[in-house]
Amino acid sequence: MSRIAYVNGQYVPHMTAAVHIEDRGYQFSDGVYEVVAVHHGKLIDMDGHLTRLTRSLTELEMAWPVAPAALEVIIREVIRRNRIRDGIVYMQVTRGVAPRNHAFPAHQNSALVVMAKRFPPFDFDATNKGVNVITTPEIRWKRRDIKTVSLLGNCLAKEQAVRAGCYEAWFIEDDGMVTEGTSSNAWIVTADGELVTRDVSNAILNGITRLSIMKVANENGIEFVERAFSVDEARAAREAFVSSTTSFVKPVVKIDGDPVGDGKAGPLSTKLLAYFGEHIKAQIA
Amino acid sequence: MSRIAYVNGQYVPHMTAAVHIEDRGYQFSDGVYEVVAVHHGKLIDMDGHLTRLTRSLTELEMAWPVAPAALEVIIREVIRRNRIRDGIVYMQVTRGVAPRNHAFPAHQNSALVVMAKRFPPFDFDATNKGVNVITTPEIRWKRRDIKTVSLLGNCLAKEQAVRAGCYEAWFIEDDGMVTEGTSSNAWIVTADGELVTRDVSNAILNGITRLSIMKVANENGIEFVERAFSVDEARAAREAFVSSTTSFVKPVVKIDGDPVGDGKAGPLSTKLLAYFGEHIKAQIA
Repeated sequence: MSRIAYVNGQYVPHMTAAVHIEDRGYQFSDGVYEVVAVHHGKLIDMDGHLTRLTRSLTELEMAWPVAPAALEVIIREVIRRNRIRDGIVYMQVTRGVAPRNHAFPAHQNSALVVMAKRFPPFDFDATNKGVNVITTPEIRWKRRDIKTVSLLGNCLAKEQAVRAGCYEAWFIEDDGMVTEGTSSNAWIVTADGELVTRDVSNAILNGITRLSIMKVANENGIEFVERAFSVDEARAAREAFVSSTTSFVKPVVKIDGDPVGDGKAGPLSTKLLAYFGEHIKAQIA
Repeated sequence: MSRIAYVNGQYVPHMTAAVHIEDRGYQFSDGVYEVVAVHHGKLIDMDGHLTRLTRSLTELEMAWPVAPAALEVIIREVIRRNRIRDGIVYMQVTRGVAPRNHAFPAHQNSALVVMAKRFPPFDFDATNKGVNVITTPEIRWKRRDIKTVSLLGNCLAKEQAVRAGCYEAWFIEDDGMVTEGTSSNAWIVTADGELVTRDVSNAILNGITRLSIMKVANENGIEFVERAFSVDEARAAREAFVSSTTSFVKPVVKIDGDPVGDGKAGPLSTKLLAYFGEHIKAQIA
């Protein structure tokens, strides 16, 4: 069975799915996106993703390509046509096609692409192996709160991480503070046992998994603080982890080659992954 | 006659010219570009554009999509097929198509798009009317020296300018220094008569027209200084102008609504436009 993508009103074979060369996504990175996990055929945290997509579009004054309800129908159809039980669905909205000009076009014809891909199912019994991260200077633009496709800085940093044999790169501001990873939020459990992740501002993307972790932490009486933390604080932390739609809760056991805590997945990270698994289970029941 | 674009090895009707939805230009703004002016059928400052394209590709470790000599052949063919006597040619190179993943793909199959458009011929007798600019906080990423398609910040600022009835927006850093315009370099003639434009660093794109203006200034005994200048210095300047492939030398007569100098195109700007005209004439002779 061939993969199917949705492109501006049509379901087409993935291999031939294409957008115009003057789509503003291609020429200006004038577009936004979301990645939603599918577990047991169910869209996980879909409301959160739609809320964030709405915010991204609003911040950029970009029109919806279709009504939100229609978008959900399209997403479900793409999942159905690709027979995805466990995987991800990727949706991208751009300001559409227009003769090349930096200023917005007069029209409101946003473009929509939706594609899906299989992923191994969520492993509820996973032993939570740790990953390594590097740090890299924060060079990206200052509106990281909007989930845009202007991701070149993220790509360059992720490539650095991969070449260093690491899973992720954490961006560090001039003042030594961690913003986030290239495609995940950053968390630590400080030397004093405080669970910390950066507070929401223009500096970071408000991850949907970040929000879900806060929800399960609250439900399970685990306190946390939203504030900036420094890379030094992270190096001295007991535990660290990253969160994202595809990483869930992934313990960080080394930062720039130095072990975090005892260099193994920590107890709080492990607990939060288990709670996050419950959060998913509740949605696929 | 219909417009023709070149896309990855084929000359196709512009209307149907398309790239795959997983082209990294579309999903990650992982691409670079150049815009070259065509006057009387001749490519203006082509060497400078190719040198800069080489630099952009090198900085991003992106492979050439075709050999540089082949690129020139393709560009000339696109101009020929579109019967462009006066216009612009736009070329975009991306890291090609790959399953979505921030890190670079293993392959080196860069993608190439070339398109062209007619523009009114360069008016060698133009009375150099001034334009207005606004200022806006510099929120873009820190590798503005690379000519990437990661242009969302530029688009948002240009849109602000247009809404304010202005031609361009100048980006201002936290310390009050001007970096550049959204699609042009910024120049002033200070209250003391010093011709100034920002020095080359990661903070600005080294404009090809910027370099040509320096060349004609040198040839005509006009001194200039490459250094950062503040928005306050610009407001107090005798003259100001922007330079780009499509703006040439365009006097700035108002900044945020306040007149620059006497609010008219200044003598040095006018002189430099004339010299730039000679620079073009020499290439189309």
